[in-house]
Amino acid sequence: MVFVGFGFLMAFLQRYGFSSVGFTFLLAALALQWSTLVQGFLHSFHDSHIHVGVESMINADFCAGAVLISFGAVLGKTGPAQLLLMALLEVALFGINEFVLLTLLGVKDAGGSMTIHTFGAYFGLALSRVLYRPQLEKSKHRLSSVYHSDLFAMIGTIFLWIFWPSFNSAPTTLGDGQHRTALNTYYSLTASTLSTFALSALVGGDGRLDMVHIQNAALAGGVVVGTSSEMMLTPFGALAAGFLAGTVSTLGYKFFTPFLESKFKVQDTCGVHNLHGMPGVLGALLGALVAALATHEAYGDGLQSVFPLIAEVRRSATSQAVYQLFGLFITLMFAIVGGSLGGLLLKLPFLDAPPESKCYEDQLYWEVPGEHEDEAQGPLRVEEPDTQA
Amino acid sequence: MVFVGFGFLMAFLQRYGFSSVGFTFLLAALALQWSTLVQGFLHSFHDSHIHVGVESMINADFCAGAVLISFGAVLGKTGPAQLLLMALLEVALFGINEFVLLTLLGVKDAGGSMTIHTFGAYFGLALSRVLYRPQLEKSKHRLSSVYHSDLFAMIGTIFLWIFWPSFNSAPTTLGDGQHRTALNTYYSLTASTLSTFALSALVGGDGRLDMVHIQNAALAGGVVVGTSSEMMLTPFGALAAGFLAGTVSTLGYKFFTPFLESKFKVQDTCGVHNLHGMPGVLGALLGALVAALATHEAYGDGLQSVFPLIAEVRRSATSQAVYQLFGLFITLMFAIVGGSLGGLLLKLPFLDAPPESKCYEDQLYWEVPGEHEDEAQGPLRVEEPDTQA
Amino acid sequence: MVFVGFGFLMAFLQRYGFSSVGFTFLLAALALQWSTLVQGFLHSFHDSHIHVGVESMINADFCAGAVLISFGAVLGKTGPAQLLLMALLEVALFGINEFVLLTLLGVKDAGGSMTIHTFGAYFGLALSRVLYRPQLEKSKHRLSSVYHSDLFAMIGTIFLWIFWPSFNSAPTTLGDGQHRTALNTYYSLTASTLSTFALSALVGGDGRLDMVHIQNAALAGGVVVGTSSEMMLTPFGALAAGFLAGTVSTLGYKFFTPFLESKFKVQDTCGVHNLHGMPGVLGALLGALVAALATHEAYGDGLQSVFPLIAEVRRSATSQAVYQLFGLFITLMFAIVGGSLGGLLLKLPFLDAPPESKCYEDQLYWEVPGEHEDEAQGPLRVEEPDTQA
Repeated sequence: MVFVGFGFLMAFLQRYGFSSVGFTFLLAALALQWSTLVQGFLHSFHDSHIHVGVESMINADFCAGAVLISFGAVLGKTGPAQLLLMALLEVALFGINEFVLLTLLGVKDAGGSMTIHTFGAYFGLALSRVLYRPQLEKSKHRLSSVYHSDLFAMIGTIFLWIFWPSFNSAPTTLGDGQHRTALNTYYSLTASTLSTFALSALVGGDGRLDMVHIQNAALAGGVVVGTSSEMMLTPFGALAAGFLAGTVSTLGYKFFTPFLESKFKVQDTCGVHNLHGMPGVLGALLGALVAALATHEAYGDGLQSVFPLIAEVRRSATSQAVYQLFGLFITLMFAIVGGSLGGLLLKLPFLDAPPESKCYEDQLYWEVPGEHEDEAQGPLRVEEPDTQA
Repeated sequence: MVFVGFGFLMAFLQRYGFSSVGFTFLLAALALQWSTLVQGFLHSFHDSHIHVGVESMINADFCAGAVLISFGAVLGKTGPAQLLLMALLEVALFGINEFVLLTLLGVKDAGGSMTIHTFGAYFGLALSRVLYRPQLEKSKHRLSSVYHSDLFAMIGTIFLWIFWPSFNSAPTTLGDGQHRTALNTYYSLTASTLSTFALSALVGGDGRLDMVHIQNAALAGGVVVGTSSEMMLTPFGALAAGFLAGTVSTLGYKFFTPFLESKFKVQDTCGVHNLHGMPGVLGALLGALVAALATHEAYGDGLQSVFPLIAEVRRSATSQAVYQLFGLFITLMFAIVGGSLGGLLLKLPFLDAPPESKCYEDQLYWEVPGEHEDEAQGPLRVEEPDTQA
Repeated sequence: MVFVGFGFLMAFLQRYGFSSVGFTFLLAALALQWSTLVQGFLHSFHDSHIHVGVESMINADFCAGAVLISFGAVLGKTGPAQLLLMALLEVALFGINEFVLLTLLGVKDAGGSMTIHTFGAYFGLALSRVLYRPQLEKSKHRLSSVYHSDLFAMIGTIFLWIFWPSFNSAPTTLGDGQHRTALNTYYSLTASTLSTFALSALVGGDGRLDMVHIQNAALAGGVVVGTSSEMMLTPFGALAAGFLAGTVSTLGYKFFTPFLESKFKVQDTCGVHNLHGMPGVLGALLGALVAALATHEAYGDGLQSVFPLIAEVRRSATSQAVYQLFGLFITLMFAIVGGSLGGLLLKLPFLDAPPESKCYEDQLYWEVPGEHEDEAQGPLRVEEPDTQA
């Protein structure tokens, strides 16, 4: 049940208060319902009934995850009507893409490096490109964080970190496969955390760390093993993958995000390209590599559950790897074409996009109370605080 | 073990800082111990020993939930001595009420729509009525929230949302019944979240959303299926129930809470009537309806675990429904009479109620540090914040 | 998987923002990796391979817990290079100490009263003694908390409280032993919470509560049953132990921490001596006492899993108790000698300790954004906040 938590905890990764948390909540609730229907029609439609169960909850939750990743790319620049339409579209496309990959092509993607992270990130980035707003610097002063909001975001980071091993292993087969998935994810996460700290200090001024890197890039290790964590990645492979992902992601925040905006006109509010896009693609490539190396000797009886098509000699390890790469290609196509079309749709004027000078602003959609208690309370007699032991 | 979390997470639903969180902690610790004893005597007293186990932990936790709901109604207007006495009384009454309903009457109430939510809410409201304080507007300026406290409260909301399916399904029989309970709760929660957002925008000025509605009414879907989630509610039934609960709860916050205070002199600090009272009663009625429709065909072998008395042909489905309604009636009686008597007891002068001009104020009970770091730190050299990627 | 959470959640127990949370994250990631290696060599090194699994994750997590406890003692006075070196040393020593106790001496310590809490606390305190900084009062004004940071810390407290029963029972044998461990921990925690509230009000000025006590001492009940929770402590014994631990810990914060600093020159930033040191030693003594009382009659078949050496008549209950005491002695030796040597090493000048006037200050290591949104946003039109229902 804990996995339901994934989508919601992302909320705290953002720094824009009510709208981030509230709209995340709204989008997740919609995506959970709608994806239960969509995936039900595609996967478990028998005798004109959709069969639901814990598995469909997990699937719906994964789909909500992809929607929230896309939300991260357009955060603060879209109104609720636009977001709801985006969720409707993306859930349908997500279901079709996943169906094509997992069912038609027999691609393996337990933790969703492709289906969730790559799809969600590039869908959102394509959308953000189409919705490009040249005058956004009018709202730029609202893009920064404050001290306490960064701590809120860290709550989200830590929870995602903790639950990621369970998250990646949720859809895998019970037993050895599940333990392997959890352990690989866990090693990868510890490695990406260390490499993020090291890189952040290296690229920061005066060796100082940047909270944005820590909040986000530390999680890249979980994304990068999404496809391969179920496979025989070995602890060393997981550590190496996590190290690479943390490095790429941190460098992405520092150098690539500004470049994306100035050259490609993609405004990526939360840097989903760094946390989900690049590590997701890396993870898909890694999955293809590990699949190419699959042998009966290494997996033993477990081969049947991880690669049933190889075990039944209907596919060689190499051709499984080619299928994995083809799956990545299809995912990118679906995401970029779908996101661009979605962007055109979201430009419809009656969907009420926020004006460019009012982006990243809660007051447009929420009743916002004052910032400080004193404002509401009149003079508060503050006593000399005790020195904390 | 996760279920132990329920009571404590409610703390964040409140906006009054140290006292809300601290007293919740205190009340929960007391209620857990005391209800283990009370329920032990009623349920598992053999050979002059109380048998404890995971089940008694879950039961004690449910009881602590009811105490914290009542706490929500009197929050900020009662001192710690009053609260401890309230907890002592309420735990005892909760145990008796639950014993009468579940053991003597054979009523089904897995998620506690009646025993926890209805009982806790009306106990607290009756108490609040007796403790009516006409001059409370002197403290009214301290009743509002601030930006960060609303975000704290959302942490509580999201955790309760995530754990609610586990919470409702904790005491049910393993297997089909437990899966059904979790799925029904989950569908109902998604529906109440959507209807809350829709209604909140509809009744708000300029279509703006109100954080109080989102924080609370979004959870009404979990309350409303408390009785019936174990039963054959069907996903559609769960969605409809959640939609209704979110609607009723949001409208309650907007229109009914001010009316309750002005006409009935019930000051309901956290709006427990909207989140627990009305959805709880609705849930009890829904449970009676679904019980009336129970047939051997629909449940198959599962009937034995859900409705053992019907399965053993000792009771018809209709008479089970009548018993359910009777259970609701008894719960309301226990809660209202018990709450009123409790209120009289809490008026005893040596219990040290806070003066009316000092309600909702931490300084009465806590060593409170300053509000801002600058106050404690002297001038802080704040640098130009980096634009977040 | 949830247990991985333990170490990270400690972060919120601190009040110094980015550095506490961030360095906790860094130290935990390092300790998890490094202790998997160290413990792997000591415990599961076969055929030149280390065998990893869920068990090694739990063990590594426990080790990270000890490192974070030591971090609590030197928090704010050490730089990241010093902390990383400390973690490297402590993880190695932790592994050796645990190996000596559990494997060589056959000492029982399921929840780690000795191996985690006593070791971590006294290692950190010895380190802090060697690193004594006489001019620290220059940074004293930064030692206090602010209103919101105390609420953040409460999130940590509540999560630790909730997960502690699972935490203590994680390494025990499935079945009766695990249930017993969880229940004992839970009773002890409720008792220490109540005694902490009572004591805090008693020793506070005007009967006011101190948030520091509630945040920390309420958890002492979990520490004190770390050794004995697996044993036949009985609920009454657990309640008594928790009550005692809460009392000792609260009194420690009030009276003993200032005394430690003025007389013994030990600057204990977070009061780990009160939360982990004294309750840990108490827990070890309690474990010896309960072990001395172990009989075949009381445990039945369970004796084999709790005390295998007694069950196999290779050791009497009394000699098991003596071994427990000897384990405590060895732990204290390892911690104090190791911590002192570690402290000497950490004094090496190139490790870049923060200057005494810059302790407890995030700006030394982090890019810190402004404190308030207004600073970044220019004038914010704050509307009259709605009275919350």
